[in-house]
Amino acid sequence: MASKRRPFHLRKPRPRPVRKLVPAHRLMAAKSGLPPGSLIHVGDKLADSVRISMVTYDESQAQFKEDVQLQDLTKPRNGETCWITIQGLHEVQVVEAIGSHFQLHPLVLEDILNTTQRPKIEDLGDYLYIVLRALHQEDDSADIGSAEQVSVIVGPNLVLTFLESHRAYFQGVAERIRSGKGRIRKSGSDYLAYCLIDAVIDRYFVVLERLAERIELLEDEVATHPTPETIQGIHKLKTGMVYLRRCVWPLREVLSRLTSGESPLIRQDTLPYLRDVYDHAIHVIDTMETYRDIVSGMLDIYLSSVSNKLNEIMKVLTIIATLFIPLTFVTSWYGMNFKTMPELDWRWGYLMVIAIAVSVAVAMLIIFRRRGWI
Amino acid sequence: MASKRRPFHLRKPRPRPVRKLVPAHRLMAAKSGLPPGSLIHVGDKLADSVRISMVTYDESQAQFKEDVQLQDLTKPRNGETCWITIQGLHEVQVVEAIGSHFQLHPLVLEDILNTTQRPKIEDLGDYLYIVLRALHQEDDSADIGSAEQVSVIVGPNLVLTFLESHRAYFQGVAERIRSGKGRIRKSGSDYLAYCLIDAVIDRYFVVLERLAERIELLEDEVATHPTPETIQGIHKLKTGMVYLRRCVWPLREVLSRLTSGESPLIRQDTLPYLRDVYDHAIHVIDTMETYRDIVSGMLDIYLSSVSNKLNEIMKVLTIIATLFIPLTFVTSWYGMNFKTMPELDWRWGYLMVIAIAVSVAVAMLIIFRRRGWI
Amino acid sequence: MASKRRPFHLRKPRPRPVRKLVPAHRLMAAKSGLPPGSLIHVGDKLADSVRISMVTYDESQAQFKEDVQLQDLTKPRNGETCWITIQGLHEVQVVEAIGSHFQLHPLVLEDILNTTQRPKIEDLGDYLYIVLRALHQEDDSADIGSAEQVSVIVGPNLVLTFLESHRAYFQGVAERIRSGKGRIRKSGSDYLAYCLIDAVIDRYFVVLERLAERIELLEDEVATHPTPETIQGIHKLKTGMVYLRRCVWPLREVLSRLTSGESPLIRQDTLPYLRDVYDHAIHVIDTMETYRDIVSGMLDIYLSSVSNKLNEIMKVLTIIATLFIPLTFVTSWYGMNFKTMPELDWRWGYLMVIAIAVSVAVAMLIIFRRRGWI
Amino acid sequence: MASKRRPFHLRKPRPRPVRKLVPAHRLMAAKSGLPPGSLIHVGDKLADSVRISMVTYDESQAQFKEDVQLQDLTKPRNGETCWITIQGLHEVQVVEAIGSHFQLHPLVLEDILNTTQRPKIEDLGDYLYIVLRALHQEDDSADIGSAEQVSVIVGPNLVLTFLESHRAYFQGVAERIRSGKGRIRKSGSDYLAYCLIDAVIDRYFVVLERLAERIELLEDEVATHPTPETIQGIHKLKTGMVYLRRCVWPLREVLSRLTSGESPLIRQDTLPYLRDVYDHAIHVIDTMETYRDIVSGMLDIYLSSVSNKLNEIMKVLTIIATLFIPLTFVTSWYGMNFKTMPELDWRWGYLMVIAIAVSVAVAMLIIFRRRGWI
Amino acid sequence: MASKRRPFHLRKPRPRPVRKLVPAHRLMAAKSGLPPGSLIHVGDKLADSVRISMVTYDESQAQFKEDVQLQDLTKPRNGETCWITIQGLHEVQVVEAIGSHFQLHPLVLEDILNTTQRPKIEDLGDYLYIVLRALHQEDDSADIGSAEQVSVIVGPNLVLTFLESHRAYFQGVAERIRSGKGRIRKSGSDYLAYCLIDAVIDRYFVVLERLAERIELLEDEVATHPTPETIQGIHKLKTGMVYLRRCVWPLREVLSRLTSGESPLIRQDTLPYLRDVYDHAIHVIDTMETYRDIVSGMLDIYLSSVSNKLNEIMKVLTIIATLFIPLTFVTSWYGMNFKTMPELDWRWGYLMVIAIAVSVAVAMLIIFRRRGWI
Repeated sequence: MASKRRPFHLRKPRPRPVRKLVPAHRLMAAKSGLPPGSLIHVGDKLADSVRISMVTYDESQAQFKEDVQLQDLTKPRNGETCWITIQGLHEVQVVEAIGSHFQLHPLVLEDILNTTQRPKIEDLGDYLYIVLRALHQEDDSADIGSAEQVSVIVGPNLVLTFLESHRAYFQGVAERIRSGKGRIRKSGSDYLAYCLIDAVIDRYFVVLERLAERIELLEDEVATHPTPETIQGIHKLKTGMVYLRRCVWPLREVLSRLTSGESPLIRQDTLPYLRDVYDHAIHVIDTMETYRDIVSGMLDIYLSSVSNKLNEIMKVLTIIATLFIPLTFVTSWYGMNFKTMPELDWRWGYLMVIAIAVSVAVAMLIIFRRRGWI
Repeated sequence: MASKRRPFHLRKPRPRPVRKLVPAHRLMAAKSGLPPGSLIHVGDKLADSVRISMVTYDESQAQFKEDVQLQDLTKPRNGETCWITIQGLHEVQVVEAIGSHFQLHPLVLEDILNTTQRPKIEDLGDYLYIVLRALHQEDDSADIGSAEQVSVIVGPNLVLTFLESHRAYFQGVAERIRSGKGRIRKSGSDYLAYCLIDAVIDRYFVVLERLAERIELLEDEVATHPTPETIQGIHKLKTGMVYLRRCVWPLREVLSRLTSGESPLIRQDTLPYLRDVYDHAIHVIDTMETYRDIVSGMLDIYLSSVSNKLNEIMKVLTIIATLFIPLTFVTSWYGMNFKTMPELDWRWGYLMVIAIAVSVAVAMLIIFRRRGWI
Repeated sequence: MASKRRPFHLRKPRPRPVRKLVPAHRLMAAKSGLPPGSLIHVGDKLADSVRISMVTYDESQAQFKEDVQLQDLTKPRNGETCWITIQGLHEVQVVEAIGSHFQLHPLVLEDILNTTQRPKIEDLGDYLYIVLRALHQEDDSADIGSAEQVSVIVGPNLVLTFLESHRAYFQGVAERIRSGKGRIRKSGSDYLAYCLIDAVIDRYFVVLERLAERIELLEDEVATHPTPETIQGIHKLKTGMVYLRRCVWPLREVLSRLTSGESPLIRQDTLPYLRDVYDHAIHVIDTMETYRDIVSGMLDIYLSSVSNKLNEIMKVLTIIATLFIPLTFVTSWYGMNFKTMPELDWRWGYLMVIAIAVSVAVAMLIIFRRRGWI
Repeated sequence: MASKRRPFHLRKPRPRPVRKLVPAHRLMAAKSGLPPGSLIHVGDKLADSVRISMVTYDESQAQFKEDVQLQDLTKPRNGETCWITIQGLHEVQVVEAIGSHFQLHPLVLEDILNTTQRPKIEDLGDYLYIVLRALHQEDDSADIGSAEQVSVIVGPNLVLTFLESHRAYFQGVAERIRSGKGRIRKSGSDYLAYCLIDAVIDRYFVVLERLAERIELLEDEVATHPTPETIQGIHKLKTGMVYLRRCVWPLREVLSRLTSGESPLIRQDTLPYLRDVYDHAIHVIDTMETYRDIVSGMLDIYLSSVSNKLNEIMKVLTIIATLFIPLTFVTSWYGMNFKTMPELDWRWGYLMVIAIAVSVAVAMLIIFRRRGWI
Repeated sequence: MASKRRPFHLRKPRPRPVRKLVPAHRLMAAKSGLPPGSLIHVGDKLADSVRISMVTYDESQAQFKEDVQLQDLTKPRNGETCWITIQGLHEVQVVEAIGSHFQLHPLVLEDILNTTQRPKIEDLGDYLYIVLRALHQEDDSADIGSAEQVSVIVGPNLVLTFLESHRAYFQGVAERIRSGKGRIRKSGSDYLAYCLIDAVIDRYFVVLERLAERIELLEDEVATHPTPETIQGIHKLKTGMVYLRRCVWPLREVLSRLTSGESPLIRQDTLPYLRDVYDHAIHVIDTMETYRDIVSGMLDIYLSSVSNKLNEIMKVLTIIATLFIPLTFVTSWYGMNFKTMPELDWRWGYLMVIAIAVSVAVAMLIIFRRRGWI
């Protein structure tokens, strides 16, 4: 009962659900007024140090180099595909050096460093610039996960990936190159880019599963014992899904443009694979919308359940009051001190009052029963 | 009365309506990180064994073979149309063997095995790959039905169908081939494909009818004796319809592409039939939307009915309290023990109180009557 | 007062608003599994017998034949326009005979018989097939009307109309042919088709008027004395409008295709007339949407009015309780039987209590007045 | 207090907001069944008599004729622009005569007379037919204004305007022609048409201002002292805006087609002016949508304010009841007449009860204060 | 406690949130009836005086002139770019003189002076006319900021900017020209225009940040101690966002047309920069929509929290009433003055009543505990 008595404003504050939405704009706002092309890292410093790794492969072999130095970067030889991964974006000069080495447009470099981008694709003639948002989640957190910006540059036989953290999103792709199984070593940079996009989108299914579990839990909670915390949970879920949507929706356009076959960098036989990953993205978007509908429905149930509870409470109050207030009137009546109240002196007066009381109570109970209240 | 007294959180949990939505993503999530084209069965194992059946027919005759072995599969001869049905997808190597026998693209095989696809169509040049979701329902279940993935491959004189279970969705089509009535034996693989799509979409009307019955029942319930279970029923219905929509909406695009006449695999004189089935799909989608509107309206009625009930209850309480509280005050007044209360000694004191009580009661009743409360 | 006391679940059930939506699918569902082109009448048997009438006219004369036999049907001569009306669809062989006489596609015949079609248009080369839904209403019914399928076949100098009932929707058109006034006898089959479509859409304005009257009545009811029946009325109106929308919305596309001038069957100088009827259809759709908005707004008013009523009730209860409970406490105080209660023996004790009671009552009334409660 | 006691159903009815929506369809409905091109005036008889005025002008001079007779109508000479205004539509034969004099299509004449048209534009080759809805408002009315149909026919050097009433919407345009300032006398009929459209749309800004004032008033009312009349006001405002939207929305399409430069009747140098008026129309539509959003928000505030009021009322009731019901129990306890109630005979019994009463009251007040109730 | 007792209608009025929306239309309305091209300043007089400044630069040098007189305006020489800024629009003749000096279309001048425009772009052949709305906010105001119209004229080597106030939105751009760093001095008028647009849009991120802070505050408030002021705050926020949306949404179209590469005034190598600013605009719009969703969700929480509070209050009332009303009945019973009430004379009568009272209280408490109420 303690928790009921504690004044509402003394309860511990709930976690603030939009926290994730703010820093991006705070940083964007801080950048306001700077000239275009200014290379400034906008985002959290997720990685301790900048790590560069390089994979060079053709059909016959694959070379892996970790912790490559800037001066060791070479352009890929003929027939070879080169995949360079930069993890950690807070050292602006590293990105700048890579940009000038591979002749990237200043605005592309600015976008790589500004980690608040929506997923997008830009065709700059010599290369494609693709922005994705990879989801990750701490195992112990109740959160539905946060997103990290993944920039992919796709050149004729070159793929650059820029990540904010040291997370190993592309471990599986590297493994496939190492093992040499499947098409990956036989195909060029476009197939590699496909593999990277596929790896990013595959992670969304894990988040969807987590979402589904949360929705199931909240549905049970709403149906059986809804509390004010439930509505907070629903709101948090909705806010999280709004956030997720912003990562997922633009993918539709990105992949639609990739599969349109406009860019000469994308070979014809990679298109079915991109169409497949496009289907996956549609699947994710579709499921998100389905969840939105279900979560909206949960709110209605919550509100109706609160109303029902009120009805239950009021029914109890009304039953008690309706039963005892008339009875108390009767007893109060014979508590009056008039000199001349003949009933008080009657022999069966007291029994008469008992009879009245019992009949009133029984009548009331019958009425309640008829109304379906008890 | 027992059910009223039982604390809310002890009631038995209701069936969880999103259960069906979860496994797909759970399995998709499990697949996360695997290379593209990995042949893994994603879905429930609905059939005990894999059964392959084959029908070969031309205008003059039709041959039916059940339980065909993989090595017995032959390509159809000239002028003949061959329809092979694979029921049960959990034995990946069977699908793989069929795929290599008919030279299907690895991604198509992957999609056939991943039974969480949305309906879609893909033109792979030599053949069309169509994904549909067939609805079925257990007769004794209160559910609106679950969906099974049906993959259809349409080649020049070949149709392959992959089903998850042994359910006989296409019994009617097979019968028509056997009897030789109608156009089916005279037409080619495109007309057969049309018949299969038509058979799948026809089943939706059965589900729509079931939905309509449920809606009628719930509307009666909402209008006459709404309970908290009613709102759960409405939510379950809505969730089921959200699920159904995901099966039905993409059909519009699938059939729109089929009827566009782009693919050379679809003959000119099959187009009117496909347009007809397109109309059926629009009809289903349209009806779904109508039901959505009606079910949304039911929620409003439910909530207003809960509010009305509260008003009814409060009216009773107010009438009783307003009637008896002033009366009890009066009687309580003459229950005071002051030495000098002249009324107590009056001859007509008691009668006066009776008169007061009756007048107060009558006045209150008149006021209530005027307000329309009684 | 009786109606208040009757338990809610014993009240007589309200008319079920979706009844109209169900039979269609029930019948469609019954058809599930049959081969395409199967000629089965899907719908209610609205007419007792099948009646065929034929009008043949050119600029100079017009011949009317009622109750034509199948064998008397002739194709129109050069320069003449022939309009054949079939009323009653339950005798499938009649429709079949007409179909084979005029060489109609089997799917068109199937659609004519399946009276659950949405309005649509199909160009079959030799003729156009147009499906409309005509509204009619029984004069004594409270319903907003039901719809009947009207199929129109427009050939070069031939118009066939298939109706479900004997209702005289096209009386006016026939009159105009008979009188020979206006353009109708000078123009061909396309102008006749226009006249028929115009006649069908004109009826919608009658229904709109009826809807407007209903909305006005319900608005008055909601504003002055809303009852739970009001919300049922609003829901019924909404459901009826959902049903009406399904008849009206597809007209936009039907008429847009007719006015596109693609079909050689539609002459250039008929286009302005078709554009005019297109405007009428848009007008109907537009008004429907306006009504939807207004009806949605009524629901909000209803709910707020229910809340206001609750507030009124609670105010009464609170005023009474707040006034008398403290007073009763005071009187109850001096009803205690303690030996030593000095006030009881005071000379002015009783007057003091009277003074206290009056002051409390006056103070309470002043507070209520300040709060605007009384 | 009188107003509180008057039963709800006896209050005076509020003005019915959809009245304006009804007559149109009632009249359309009355026309149902007539042949196309039937010239029947559909609308209210707003003007007493039909007045025809004519302005003929070229760059050097301008002639104004009031109350022109039908036989005095001449076609404009070369280089001159002729503007004829017909005010009052109830004399059908006048419109018919003008129609035959200027060779207007019968359907155009029908539409001019049927004053329930949505804004639209039709290109009839020789001339454009534009329908607009002009807003006007009585100064003393609380209404947001009603709309009148304005038909504009734009020929090569001829403009015809048909108005329902004698209102001087185009006074300003006539003044500009008279004064000869600006471009108007130098430009042709298309510029004149632009001026007329501009004059009609300019009036919408006056209505928008009026709407804004109403919204401000209602917002203040909702925020400070919402009454059931407030919700009626919001609903009336919404209904009025729905009505206004129907006048405004189709303008987007009308002006978009005018500015497309398709018609040879519109000269190249008039296009910027039409684009300007298009911007104005978008501005009006945009503001309407903004107001819709704000008004929707007001409803939420109203409902939450009603709920808050209920909470306030219930708090008062609960405080009073919770304070005095336990106290009354205590006093009632010592009002029992048992022979042996030792406390009654104690010396400090009465003081003990006083102490109990005070402590209970103080404890309750502390609890209320902690809960933030007082 | 004072604030609780003060009648609701005496509280101080809240700031009116739509104030900003009104003046524009009031002024537009005042202009109603004037001929097109009338140069009248529509808007607030934000600046005290009109200030004209001029910057002339090429790759090698840059000249800055403040407080330029009208007669000193020269057209830029070959190779030079000239940027003229006019701050303050209330002196119509200044704008008129500049208009005639640079041969601007009268409608463009009218739009520059009418500061109620939506963002738009117009291609007038010789120059582009771009309207933007710049946001600014007083540091001490609780408002989310107000908007000022910024008109930009982009000619071949000329940029004119018209501002309503003396605010230094473009300080940063001027600094970059002065310092000569970056591309700005090397590029032409199109790049300068890009810089100006970029500067305007960058300011939106500051407003977004402010919005995010407000939303966070309100979310905390809603979750912990919602008051009627909270809902007013939410409504004000929503109204402010509606206002902001009107500034931001049309930007999508403006920038989409700029990046389409249609105008020869925009050089090819400026396009990537414009696409970048287009991405920023999309980002702003996207975030606005996200905030809308979150704010809508807050309303639901607020309402459910109000309902929960009511439930809490009613629970307290019901517990107290249910506990004490039966007890008071019992005590009242033995307060009756019947001659023959045997219990009153019993030895253990009083103890019996004590036992009854305790048992009733304990039973009630157990029931409450089981129901989860305490």
